[in-house]
Order: sequence, then structure tokens, then C-alpha cells
Amino acid sequence: MRAPRSQQLILALDLAGAAVAAQEGAGAAMASRLDVLGVLVIAFVAALGGGMARDVLIGQAPPRALRDWRYPTVAIVSGLAAFAFSRWVREIPQEALITLDAAALGLLAVAGAEKSLDQGLSALAAVLVGAVTGVGGGVMRDVLLDKIPAVLTRDIYASAALAGAAIMIAGRRLGLPNAWAAMLGAVCCFALRMAAVQFGWQLPRAV
Amino acid sequence: MRAPRSQQLILALDLAGAAVAAQEGAGAAMASRLDVLGVLVIAFVAALGGGMARDVLIGQAPPRALRDWRYPTVAIVSGLAAFAFSRWVREIPQEALITLDAAALGLLAVAGAEKSLDQGLSALAAVLVGAVTGVGGGVMRDVLLDKIPAVLTRDIYASAALAGAAIMIAGRRLGLPNAWAAMLGAVCCFALRMAAVQFGWQLPRAV
Amino acid sequence: MRAPRSQQLILALDLAGAAVAAQEGAGAAMASRLDVLGVLVIAFVAALGGGMARDVLIGQAPPRALRDWRYPTVAIVSGLAAFAFSRWVREIPQEALITLDAAALGLLAVAGAEKSLDQGLSALAAVLVGAVTGVGGGVMRDVLLDKIPAVLTRDIYASAALAGAAIMIAGRRLGLPNAWAAMLGAVCCFALRMAAVQFGWQLPRAV
Repeated sequence: MRAPRSQQLILALDLAGAAVAAQEGAGAAMASRLDVLGVLVIAFVAALGGGMARDVLIGQAPPRALRDWRYPTVAIVSGLAAFAFSRWVREIPQEALITLDAAALGLLAVAGAEKSLDQGLSALAAVLVGAVTGVGGGVMRDVLLDKIPAVLTRDIYASAALAGAAIMIAGRRLGLPNAWAAMLGAVCCFALRMAAVQFGWQLPRAV
Repeated sequence: MRAPRSQQLILALDLAGAAVAAQEGAGAAMASRLDVLGVLVIAFVAALGGGMARDVLIGQAPPRALRDWRYPTVAIVSGLAAFAFSRWVREIPQEALITLDAAALGLLAVAGAEKSLDQGLSALAAVLVGAVTGVGGGVMRDVLLDKIPAVLTRDIYASAALAGAAIMIAGRRLGLPNAWAAMLGAVCCFALRMAAVQFGWQLPRAV
Repeated sequence: MRAPRSQQLILALDLAGAAVAAQEGAGAAMASRLDVLGVLVIAFVAALGGGMARDVLIGQAPPRALRDWRYPTVAIVSGLAAFAFSRWVREIPQEALITLDAAALGLLAVAGAEKSLDQGLSALAAVLVGAVTGVGGGVMRDVLLDKIPAVLTRDIYASAALAGAAIMIAGRRLGLPNAWAAMLGAVCCFALRMAAVQFGWQLPRAV
């Protein structure tokens, strides 16, 4: 029973994260004046790039995003919706986007760590792969749009992904059911990212 | 008999596409004033990057470009030739380069979709992997040269790759022999790309 | 006995190269004013990116950097040290950094070629994978920091990695013990790179 339920949990986290990341990616692509297919490509990469990198890294090629039709469908429908309603999307307040982004970060990071553990990686490797899953799509989006990836310059971003993955794993070790541990990790990542934005928390820079 | 013939078809498409993409890559690298090895590296990446990404994605690592000496040889010889004859290469009219590029796009996209089907991926995934194969090398070339990938800004480019891969698969489903379906897909991709350039077709942008 | 000793040799080369590359990556990240986590991410990518690309390419996913805790530990400790002592790191003369970098290049290129041979790749493929291992982390570092990769513009850089890997393989073919062949390749790569810097050797550019 365990494997299928764990699979379902990863699937739900992955798809929810992908839908949100696709919105964000489409928004950034429209801001760069790309045409409709460019917008879809960026939405696809932003939504599924982190998970595809994860699957290739943990030796699960072809990645699930290519084996399960729901993944590309979610990314493309979400990207198309952002394009079709671009007039409205542009009026979404910045705060709402940051909130969505923090939610996607938590969902994807926890899903990535979850799947790495399922594949028998160590806790340290699972935390690292979780962070790659959380931030990977955004990094590819920014590299394609020829910018320094936001994750490297935004305060408390990758660190929130690392923390969320670590908390999920700690929760499991402490005996929480898998779904609860995942939810706890995602919520902590989300809360940490939102608090950092709200209170202007920053990590130290070198003097 | 079928598997070997399919293999031969993929090999021929791949090598022809790689030779053309290497020319293009070398041209872009010389325009950026790289030295001879930089030119070869970019030619190699432009020629084989898409196919290597394809093989890693579909779980066929080490990629064929590393297992079969003909791949690197084609890329390197083609890049060296572009360097040696750079005086002439620079006088090749822009139209000829666009034509070659459209041919490489069609060949690589169809080869990528072909191989994905052989590996048991679904038609949707094969179309996506075909497009990645077609445009992947060019994306890596532009990322390395620190530009926004042309595929995201050029009109009807990735869309032509998607269409070529889809037409190839549709042709197979309709009972065409594999080689005919591949040729049909590659020709349609080529024609669509050339027509888009000729008539200035554009995909819509968000308002 | 042979396999384990070869493994140990690759491990030692890999870890020494990673420690040096992490220093370099951290230095470049601090120069771009990233915060402490951004510095660690770049150090991690610079140190382990080439080796992870190598393992994915040769079909050894999950890469060793995720399966063996010593890899991330070396990268993170080395990056943290560079951050903590940034005041001193900044005063390290440029010559020392170039020397360290040349050493890392030789170590990583030879380790990459070594491992590719162990996996049964051909000599040509092993040389190419060795060069990818040597320069891959630096390429990812520069792409993330939104620069043209230094490897494409620095004189005699990737060529030194190719030469080192080729010399290692030639040494093996000529009957040298593996450890000696590896050392010879790494030293030749290092010497070639240092001589190129010292004497301003350049590869030709297209006219």
C-alpha cells in the first residue's frame, strides 16, 4: 500500500507546483515580449524543468514529465491560460505572485526530496535534490531569458527550499505519517519564504 | 529487420542534422571572436547537444554521440571546415544559412521523435522530445554565447519542430512506411520554417 | 584489486579538484555580491557540476556527488571557508588562483576520463567526457552568473583539459600503471595551462 500512496502524494505535490510555476514562467516570458510559443516553452521549462532534472539525477529517465501525460498537460494549459488572460494576469498584484511562487517552491522541494528518499538516496542527498527540484525550473527560465537566476539574488529562497525538504525528512524520522511530514515541510518552506519577504530578512554577504 | 532499419534512419537523420548545425554553431562562435577551440566547442555543442539531451532524457545514457565515433567526428570535421574556410563561410548569403538551419531543424526533430517512439514513449512525449532534439543544440549554443536563445524569439521555429515531429507520427499512424513518414515530417518542418521566413509569419504576442 | 584501486584514485582526484573549484566558484560569487547561500550554491555547482554531468552522461545516475557524502561536504566546507575568510581570500594574488584553477582542471579532466574508461567508453569519448568534467563546473558557474563561460574565451583552457585526458590514456596504453598515467596527464594539463598563461600562448582566431 505504501508505495502507491507515496506516489500519489508526489504526483499531487508535483502537479500543483507545476501549475503555479507555469503561471510565473508565462508571466516572465510575456514581460520579455516572447510570442505565444515562446511563452509556452518558458512555462513548460519553469513548470517541469526542476522535476525533469530531478528524475535524470536520481536515475529515473525518462523523467515522469515525459511518461505521464498529466504533467505536460498541466504545464501547457496553465501557460496558455496565462497567455489568454494576459490582460488580467498583468493586473494580479505582485504580492499574489510572490505568494504563489512561495507555494510552488514548497510543493516542488518537498516532492523532490520525497521521491529521492523513495529511490534510496541518503537524507543529505534528498535535501539537495529537493532544493534542485524547487528552484531548478526557475533557474532554467532565467537562464533562457538571459538573466542572473533570481534564486541566486533573492533573499532566503533556495534556503527556504532546503529547510522545507529538511523539515519533511525530520518529520518522517520523528514518526509523522508521510503526508503530514510533506505538508509540514511545504508549509514551513512557504512560511519562511513569506516571512523573509515580509520582514526583509536577508542572509549575510561577504564583507 | 525493423529495428536495424529504424536505427539506420535515425543515424542518417542525426548525422546530416549535426553537420549542418555544426556549421551554424561555428559561424556564431566566429562572429563572437572565439579562438579555434572555442569554435569547435560551440560547433560540437550545437551539433550534438540536442541529441545528447534527448538520449539522457529517454534513459539512453551514455548518449549515442559518445558511443559512436561518427557523431563527434562529423561535428568536429564540420566545425574545422567552417573555421578553415571562414573567409568563404562569411560570404555565404544569409538566405543559404537560414535554409540549412531549417533543414537541420527538420532532420533533428524527426530523428528525436523517431528514437523516442522506439523507446516506447507516448506520441505526446515523442513530439516534445523531438522538439528538444531539434532546438536543444541551438539553445545551448546561445546560452553559452550569453544570448537569449534564438528559438524563443525567432518566429515559427520551435513550432515548426513540433509540427514536423507530429506529422511524422501522424504519418506512421496512417500506415506510411517509417522512412516516408520521417521524410514527410522533415519536409513539412522545413517548408513551414521557410514559409514563415519568406512571408514574415508570426505567432501572436500577448497584448 | 584493480577496480577498487581505480575507484580510490578517481575519488582522490575528484575531491581535490572539487575543493579547489569550490574556492574559485565562491570567489566569483562573492565578486557578484551574492549572499552566503548564493555563494554556497555557486561553490557547489562549480565543484560538482562537471562530475555530475559526467556521471549522468555515462549512465551512472544518481551521480556519485549525490551518493557519497564526502562530495557535497567538501564543496560546502570549501565554499563556507572561502566565505568566512573572504577578507583574506580577496587578498590572495591572482597568480595563486590561476595556479589552483589549473590544478583543478587537470585533476578533474583526468578523473573524468579515468571513470569513462572504467565504464567501457572509447578513448575518444573518454577524452571528451574528461574535458566536460574539467570545464563543466566552470561553465555552469559562469552561465549562472550571466557571463560568457571563461572556458570559451580564455586561451588554452579546454585544450589543456583535452590534452591532459589524452595523455593519461596514451600513458595507460603505453603500459604505465594507472596512477602514474593519471598523474602524468594531470601534470601535463597543469603545465600546459600555466605555460599558456605565462607566455601568453593563444590559439588562432578566424581571420
